[in-house]
Amino acid sequence: MAKKKKIKIVALAGGVGGAKLAHGLAMVVPRKDLTVIVNTGDDFEHFGLSISPDLDTVCYTLAGLANPETGWGRVDESWHAFEQIEKLGGPSWFRLGDKDLATHLERTRLLQSGEPLHKITAGFCGAWGIKARVLPMTNQRVATIVDTDEGELDFQEYFVARHCQPKVKGFRFEGIENAAPAPGMLKAIQAADAVVICPSNPWVSIDPILNIPGVRAAVASRKVIAVSPIIGGEALKGPAAKMYRELGIRPSVEAVSKHYGDLLDGFVIDELDHELTKFLPHKILVTDTIMVDSAARHRLAEELIPFIEKM
Amino acid sequence: MAKKKKIKIVALAGGVGGAKLAHGLAMVVPRKDLTVIVNTGDDFEHFGLSISPDLDTVCYTLAGLANPETGWGRVDESWHAFEQIEKLGGPSWFRLGDKDLATHLERTRLLQSGEPLHKITAGFCGAWGIKARVLPMTNQRVATIVDTDEGELDFQEYFVARHCQPKVKGFRFEGIENAAPAPGMLKAIQAADAVVICPSNPWVSIDPILNIPGVRAAVASRKVIAVSPIIGGEALKGPAAKMYRELGIRPSVEAVSKHYGDLLDGFVIDELDHELTKFLPHKILVTDTIMVDSAARHRLAEELIPFIEKM
Repeated sequence: MAKKKKIKIVALAGGVGGAKLAHGLAMVVPRKDLTVIVNTGDDFEHFGLSISPDLDTVCYTLAGLANPETGWGRVDESWHAFEQIEKLGGPSWFRLGDKDLATHLERTRLLQSGEPLHKITAGFCGAWGIKARVLPMTNQRVATIVDTDEGELDFQEYFVARHCQPKVKGFRFEGIENAAPAPGMLKAIQAADAVVICPSNPWVSIDPILNIPGVRAAVASRKVIAVSPIIGGEALKGPAAKMYRELGIRPSVEAVSKHYGDLLDGFVIDELDHELTKFLPHKILVTDTIMVDSAARHRLAEELIPFIEKM
Repeated sequence: MAKKKKIKIVALAGGVGGAKLAHGLAMVVPRKDLTVIVNTGDDFEHFGLSISPDLDTVCYTLAGLANPETGWGRVDESWHAFEQIEKLGGPSWFRLGDKDLATHLERTRLLQSGEPLHKITAGFCGAWGIKARVLPMTNQRVATIVDTDEGELDFQEYFVARHCQPKVKGFRFEGIENAAPAPGMLKAIQAADAVVICPSNPWVSIDPILNIPGVRAAVASRKVIAVSPIIGGEALKGPAAKMYRELGIRPSVEAVSKHYGDLLDGFVIDELDHELTKFLPHKILVTDTIMVDSAARHRLAEELIPFIEKM
């Protein structure tokens, strides 16, 4: 591995796409200089357990424990508990692997004992050998609510149970006005050489983080680059493109660029979109942004560093 | 299997010993004529889950799903979740198997959705192919508290975490004054030809059931027989003998006989104690009460029927 770059990075991440770039950055930036701030608007309670899907995806990915095929859950997973839940007639819309269950069980136990989520996450990262700092966006409960043509839906109901089928009309982040950034988060942003907005869903992965009181202003004070989650008018994974369409916006790198607006100093788009460079107001890096494997994550992260440094 | 006897039985049961005799009775009595009322004083919350150890032991045993070696938990169990909990530094004093976890997860989900425990239990029995009726002693929360020389301990802390080491000074059943018998329970007792008190711990398995308001009187109105959990001055399993000693009572069939007192019409003791028959005020059946295998459960249950009928 090449010598690590001396540059302090804060990455904002949702689930799969964010986790991949965070993993790339962890290979390139000294781990103590990398803070990954993760969306918790998707968090929910199921079977009495506190589940944090994006936090888990980021941590499993950084720890090398993620299932590379699904993008969520753990590799070498078994499903004994889940099979028995199905035998009992329990709900099967959210799949829970045996190993993954341990994360939810222990997180729930610690939350109920009064430990804040950022400390729980730090403890898990220690146990899993993760050296980068992973922070939930807040220790308070913020719930992403999707307003649809069928009414308001909790995020997991929209995303997992309903497979993103209802038409989106808007979003709100319940509880966000009373949420505080996780301890250490604003300081990490203020100390960062750059904030990298990972290729996660702008509406439901990044916007919740930016809307925590105080976060957008702190991010705006830094060099900010985003990697577009939209490539050739589509999202690699997830409903981002569908959401743009349903909200009356043509999904494109331009749409993402407008979404983040003034916040951005630089914008990273895929080679597929190279012709659109002229329509974008920011400094642009055109490269292969599809992180098909671990080497691709590494390469993309490595290209970001000089792009940031030259800015 | 011999033709089933036309006799309505209500069995009062705790964990392992009670589960074994209940299983024997289920082989002998038409299943719709057998109601097993199970102690829930040991129930507790762990990792946010509602755990009912005695209910699960009885149900797993009746369904043929129990682990014959441990007496608790499920056969063909795996421990993937539990191993990961240990890796995260979580508490390991209460072992949770993957399949067993499904029971706690789905029970917790249903309780949180407002379904009462007796209905949840009936649903699980249906899914597991159990034909006998299994009832929790109550749908309300009753907590067995053990008063010890180290102060009051929650039952599972005393029993599992502390391995019954603290010296017992007494017991109380928190919440019992406001607990109601599970729906259908008093009716089942009133319609029973006999109530069989299984060889479970009198202090912490049977007393909680009998102390639910209205239950002792209903039981007393029926023919009642008990099978002694004390054999040759010791308990086959669990702390019953130790508890008697610490409370200043020599553990023996006489002690159990006095414990239940007037409630009993008949008493079943092991051959090992045959010489003590003359000291006991009730009708006595002396037989092999050690249920080493499924055949022994069957045989003991089959011997109980004529003993009850002749009474």
